[in-house]
Amino acid sequence: YQAAIAHHRATGRRTLLDVSIRLADHICTTFGPTARRGTDGHQEIELAMVELFRETRDRRYLDEAVFLLEMRGQQPPVVGGSPYHQDHLPVREQAEAVGHAVRLTYLACALADVAMETGDKGFGVAAHALWASAFERKAYVTGGLGARWQGEAFGEDYELPNDTAYAETCAAIGGFMWSWRLLIETGEARFAEAMETALYNGILAGVSLDGEAYFYQNPLSDRGRHRRQPWFGTACCPPNIARLLMSLPGYLASGSDKALHLHTYASALIDVIVPGAGRLHFAVETAYPWDGTVTIDVLDAPDVPVTLHLRIPSWAEGSSVAVGAQVAEDVSVGAYWAVTRRFASGDRIVLDLPMRTRLIEAHPRVASNAGRVALVRGPVVHCVEAADHPGVEVSSLAIDPQAGWDVKSIEGLPGCPHALVGVGATRGGSGPTAPLHHTRAPKDWRAAMVTAVPYFAWANREAGAMAVWLPVMQPD
Amino acid sequence: YQAAIAHHRATGRRTLLDVSIRLADHICTTFGPTARRGTDGHQEIELAMVELFRETRDRRYLDEAVFLLEMRGQQPPVVGGSPYHQDHLPVREQAEAVGHAVRLTYLACALADVAMETGDKGFGVAAHALWASAFERKAYVTGGLGARWQGEAFGEDYELPNDTAYAETCAAIGGFMWSWRLLIETGEARFAEAMETALYNGILAGVSLDGEAYFYQNPLSDRGRHRRQPWFGTACCPPNIARLLMSLPGYLASGSDKALHLHTYASALIDVIVPGAGRLHFAVETAYPWDGTVTIDVLDAPDVPVTLHLRIPSWAEGSSVAVGAQVAEDVSVGAYWAVTRRFASGDRIVLDLPMRTRLIEAHPRVASNAGRVALVRGPVVHCVEAADHPGVEVSSLAIDPQAGWDVKSIEGLPGCPHALVGVGATRGGSGPTAPLHHTRAPKDWRAAMVTAVPYFAWANREAGAMAVWLPVMQPD
Repeated sequence: YQAAIAHHRATGRRTLLDVSIRLADHICTTFGPTARRGTDGHQEIELAMVELFRETRDRRYLDEAVFLLEMRGQQPPVVGGSPYHQDHLPVREQAEAVGHAVRLTYLACALADVAMETGDKGFGVAAHALWASAFERKAYVTGGLGARWQGEAFGEDYELPNDTAYAETCAAIGGFMWSWRLLIETGEARFAEAMETALYNGILAGVSLDGEAYFYQNPLSDRGRHRRQPWFGTACCPPNIARLLMSLPGYLASGSDKALHLHTYASALIDVIVPGAGRLHFAVETAYPWDGTVTIDVLDAPDVPVTLHLRIPSWAEGSSVAVGAQVAEDVSVGAYWAVTRRFASGDRIVLDLPMRTRLIEAHPRVASNAGRVALVRGPVVHCVEAADHPGVEVSSLAIDPQAGWDVKSIEGLPGCPHALVGVGATRGGSGPTAPLHHTRAPKDWRAAMVTAVPYFAWANREAGAMAVWLPVMQPD
Repeated sequence: YQAAIAHHRATGRRTLLDVSIRLADHICTTFGPTARRGTDGHQEIELAMVELFRETRDRRYLDEAVFLLEMRGQQPPVVGGSPYHQDHLPVREQAEAVGHAVRLTYLACALADVAMETGDKGFGVAAHALWASAFERKAYVTGGLGARWQGEAFGEDYELPNDTAYAETCAAIGGFMWSWRLLIETGEARFAEAMETALYNGILAGVSLDGEAYFYQNPLSDRGRHRRQPWFGTACCPPNIARLLMSLPGYLASGSDKALHLHTYASALIDVIVPGAGRLHFAVETAYPWDGTVTIDVLDAPDVPVTLHLRIPSWAEGSSVAVGAQVAEDVSVGAYWAVTRRFASGDRIVLDLPMRTRLIEAHPRVASNAGRVALVRGPVVHCVEAADHPGVEVSSLAIDPQAGWDVKSIEGLPGCPHALVGVGATRGGSGPTAPLHHTRAPKDWRAAMVTAVPYFAWANREAGAMAVWLPVMQPD
């Protein structure tokens, strides 16, 4: 359906759309209140049905999406009744992200879509409750979703193992699509931030820098065995990445009436028709996420006041926005900063987002990350790889929390201009002859340079250990 | 077989032994060089065949054990060729503990048995190489074996997750039996120490303090969901514990010619016939492992010099042994301390093993334990439980490495006289509303009493979180 709709929107031709309509009609005839009372094992068609409704305005497709959603959690169950299929409870009552992670994200997208199109708040409540569960208690710092290989599933709250993380690329993409829907509904910056986190980390890691190989699972630590593959028997992730990357321009900004929201920053020409007033056309120039300066040049503007909303990420304390000669200092973070004015060609807006390297900690309930930190700069999560630490065991590296981190250029990682470099330490007792368990003793710390590369760029060089979460040096 | 042999040894009656001989004969006729070339899927009969050989001196049973061992790792494979069944390599070439953990331990017991009875060194080399793999790189601090639920299997080197540890009770028992065989072969104290670690921790945790319920898996941390069960569909663990506990007296000591080794300490009457010289009879009195004083009173002794070997655990720095008025101070640890003399009734030997609370660290490659310590006193691994920390999240507790630990009596845990109590800390930001990920900040430490109970006693009170490995407080 999505391909057919995209084809129709892009070309105006109905050839593929008509095929999808015939298929959708067949499904509507086969499954429905007066036909077979069934639903799918892998949610996906629900959100496609809503999109087909949007394209055709044929209400049957929206009704079918609602029907397929409502069939979950019935007694007796129609798809087995298990949390794996999110069939354990009626969808309106689901509030915990459980079961197969990709299925859950597509289910939640459909819940948000149906809530938006029908106004039925019950679906929206579930979409939001599930989001809080998934993103506030069950998401990796990379935006990855799904802690368990078993069932490719969400774990319990705070169950976020690093080495055995499943974090399927498709689940991060599904989470991105889900957050997008809640962003459009609410306008709240936290949803855009979740999208950005997933995009630059959990999703982008799914494809090699040369675009030739893919990850299905995206662990946050590894011993050098997990490598991208050219293809998979169940090949959902590669085309899903392709679809997302090709449709990225559509996620940069969104407009409503006389307002425009910029959700993330990339060099782009943005062209919007302000209803009844004319064209708003501007150029964004930035090296974001490597640099925090974003320059917006107005090329054409309607002769009415327009509100421009710029998202200030939660980590960008001390950001400023200059609109012409007016400068707003220290704007609120984790929110959209808004300016309303009659823009004119030649106007320039400069946003400055400070790009500090932050040491991120996890909630103490995340057992795998106790005493560890992740290095994050802007939206980009970093990791250490064996390739940058010859002769040193990655597992023996530790972070000095007082250290400063320099941004240094790095070679061998195309599209990845620099790495973070700081003074950390390695400890003795890390070799193969060291005892498995021993009485605690002073650590024999030796200063060592630690180089951290963007997580999305890992496993693009020779195979070796990788870790996102690094231990902090301990006192004796 | 073992029941039949035990019955025969205890009663002298052949009723059960004859049954087992007929069954063994049937197996020998069915599987062998001139019959079916097969072997078992779950190793167990090999070590039983050796024991039947020892009891009957019928060489066919030893040959059958060798045959069954040699059938593993053949091309084409006879039991699937997988590491799960230890069928991936000929047994003499196996050097890494892989696959189903219980199967591996029984295989290794048989390798050691066959090596001892046949003198074939290849089997012994494998038994030792596998032991190094299992106990020096893949064992929990509790003596538990088997990191993975998937396949109830060993993980990779240093793969020792706490919450998802499988650590089947039977695997700890199998490891105990295996270490016993290598101890008898070599006389090296490290094997006895591994047995003691397993006994007081990984094995004993397998049964509730009231003896009514059992653990199959023995994780090293839990959220309060894992509880002992009265029985299991596959009920290997409960009778295995019963067998081991009933046969414990046989593991306390072993004799050879005019020497006696005491491998661990418990109040007991030990009665040995010194070949050609007479009876050596003495009483051991101790509250070990709660107290390190062991008093040995000679009740009867032959009129020849006898060597008494007392094991000094590796953790017992500063131990002393008084033989009458002679005191040996600061004896070597991780070894047997020996005294040779003509003992006489009325002689007293007093061994003093200092029982300090040690903070144990894991090898830095054990990702789950970075920045964490385990509290161990004597051979007893401790853990913290929610029951002793009302109103505090176990995951928020941290250890002050400078703290002292008091031994205090505790109620509600029959057979478990005391707990360790020390000043640690809890940290803020540990509740359900705290963010999943946040920028590192000073920790808001608050001093808190930490109570640690023996690991074997966990989950005997109301359900709640448990952890063996606790984070060490970090500097800001």
